Amino acid sequence: MEKIKIGIAGFGNIGKAMIKVIDNNKDMEIVGVFTRRDPKSLDIENVPAFHIDDMKDFTDKVDVMLLCGGSATDLPEQGPAFAKMFNTVDSFDTHNDIPEYLKKMNESSESGKKIAVVATGWDPGLFSINRLYGKAFLPGSQTYSFWGEGVSQGHSQAVRAVNGVENAVQYTIPVAEAMERVREGKLPILTTKEKHVRIVYVVPEEDANRNEIEQEIKSMPNYFADYNTTVFFITQEELAKNHSKMSHGGFVITSGKTSEENNQIMEYSLKLESNPEFTASVMVAYARAAHRLHQKGETGARTVFDIAPSMLCAEDINELIKEIL
Amino acid sequence: MEKIKIGIAGFGNIGKAMIKVIDNNKDMEIVGVFTRRDPKSLDIENVPAFHIDDMKDFTDKVDVMLLCGGSATDLPEQGPAFAKMFNTVDSFDTHNDIPEYLKKMNESSESGKKIAVVATGWDPGLFSINRLYGKAFLPGSQTYSFWGEGVSQGHSQAVRAVNGVENAVQYTIPVAEAMERVREGKLPILTTKEKHVRIVYVVPEEDANRNEIEQEIKSMPNYFADYNTTVFFITQEELAKNHSKMSHGGFVITSGKTSEENNQIMEYSLKLESNPEFTASVMVAYARAAHRLHQKGETGARTVFDIAPSMLCAEDINELIKEIL
Repeated sequence: MEKIKIGIAGFGNIGKAMIKVIDNNKDMEIVGVFTRRDPKSLDIENVPAFHIDDMKDFTDKVDVMLLCGGSATDLPEQGPAFAKMFNTVDSFDTHNDIPEYLKKMNESSESGKKIAVVATGWDPGLFSINRLYGKAFLPGSQTYSFWGEGVSQGHSQAVRAVNGVENAVQYTIPVAEAMERVREGKLPILTTKEKHVRIVYVVPEEDANRNEIEQEIKSMPNYFADYNTTVFFITQEELAKNHSKMSHGGFVITSGKTSEENNQIMEYSLKLESNPEFTASVMVAYARAAHRLHQKGETGARTVFDIAPSMLCAEDINELIKEIL
Repeated sequence: MEKIKIGIAGFGNIGKAMIKVIDNNKDMEIVGVFTRRDPKSLDIENVPAFHIDDMKDFTDKVDVMLLCGGSATDLPEQGPAFAKMFNTVDSFDTHNDIPEYLKKMNESSESGKKIAVVATGWDPGLFSINRLYGKAFLPGSQTYSFWGEGVSQGHSQAVRAVNGVENAVQYTIPVAEAMERVREGKLPILTTKEKHVRIVYVVPEEDANRNEIEQEIKSMPNYFADYNTTVFFITQEELAKNHSKMSHGGFVITSGKTSEENNQIMEYSLKLESNPEFTASVMVAYARAAHRLHQKGETGARTVFDIAPSMLCAEDINELIKEIL
């Protein structure tokens, strides 16, 4: 069988993870990594690296381009440009901006007669699918998303910007009692702040004022001010040893009644030792779907809502029906 | 908006539940229940009942016929017959016979230019989708299905057939310790018997020999002999009071590595106070998908693997993208 030829655009956390996880997919092969940096400067083995400007020479050598840039500045620019040339998959995750991004990606992929699968990964992505399943299978139900226990990159960066902070890692942790109330079918009304607490591990600079650091973190608007936040001071060695894994996860719980007397609970959860590797692994499955849709002659942008489960698996559909339906 | 017109074929546990749960779906209306019994004999309000032989007069009055018969004898005969006349959805659940049933349903629905969605519900159904997601998002992973805590109709019936038993309910219960080992990423090798224990509540006939009943249950091949089985004797009043709900549920847990160092766990679970009502509610969502596929001009049999999430929801797709993606 001819393998699906994969390009990797970007060599940050997800791009690096991509090289590991594609290896788990025997129906795929990596054509190369495309980077804005000097390709020779990448710390990369067994995979060719190219400058991103040379991507246009690969339109007939790559079946699907995996867009591994960030949602803040990379994808809004790269996505619509690359989607004209390649089938693409990305993990665009700025929830509020998805409709606008999807529209642009649809225009680009239609103009290039390609498929673009946008906003994959686990949230948006697998969590979104489970929120939709909640509405579909239990109309009138309530769905609750909890995040963590896991490292939030955005919150960690916000703490690192505080005066006197050398390094920091922030964990988002769901409130167990809130989850229990949901699981018991009590349909509580909960804000994001009532569902999560925050724990911050700070490596202070020498002679820094720890009280001032703690106060500045805890009073930071949006990020920490309204949350139950705990700050611990540790050494760089402890941080490197105990807090270097990019673990994450969370829960999507739907609670609803099918009749007056009967409550039903659906729960989906992830416990990830590596957030970037799992995100990359989900993107790869959607790359398979993008390739198949393109081979069927379809064009335009898709979300995870549009992709049937059978499009995602390497295995033969009749085998899947026999073995796991 | 014109409502989707639903027919209900069969008035057992699922057919009765169907009348309750369709009420939760504002885009649907029930045309009637079709039964082999005297339609006047059904205990049913506000919904017309017809004899199943008159179904052929409803081909232009029903958009989707929900097949609510059993998998043992009803569906193998009714399914292929009705799928020639109507779009159908069923919850055929004899796992081993699905490929053959699917083939027959495909022939019938193709000949009638209809859509047949087969083997929906939660297992086969939502559990199957999550087993597939395990293979898709974590290639090389292990997926474990646990059933319960819940009432097994088949096992309850087997106990009721024992000499001296007036009534009985059997619960299948997952082994907590086995689930923990899976959740910890230990990848244990577990048979169905190592994953579940069985608890039986028996109402004995007057003067029945309880020891003999207990021994006969515990030594019943396939059903109980290889399981850790506990038998309790109770009164008919206790059974009616505490064991009349058809509760069920279970867990699908996938454990796999994305790289040598990182393990990832995906878990899906259901906790259902009414198994028939939830099964009916899932069938209704797939009825919406069947209607939409038929409106697009598609024909033939489908499984849950073939249906994109967006086909299942009554809500507008752009609203779903904005609100929950």
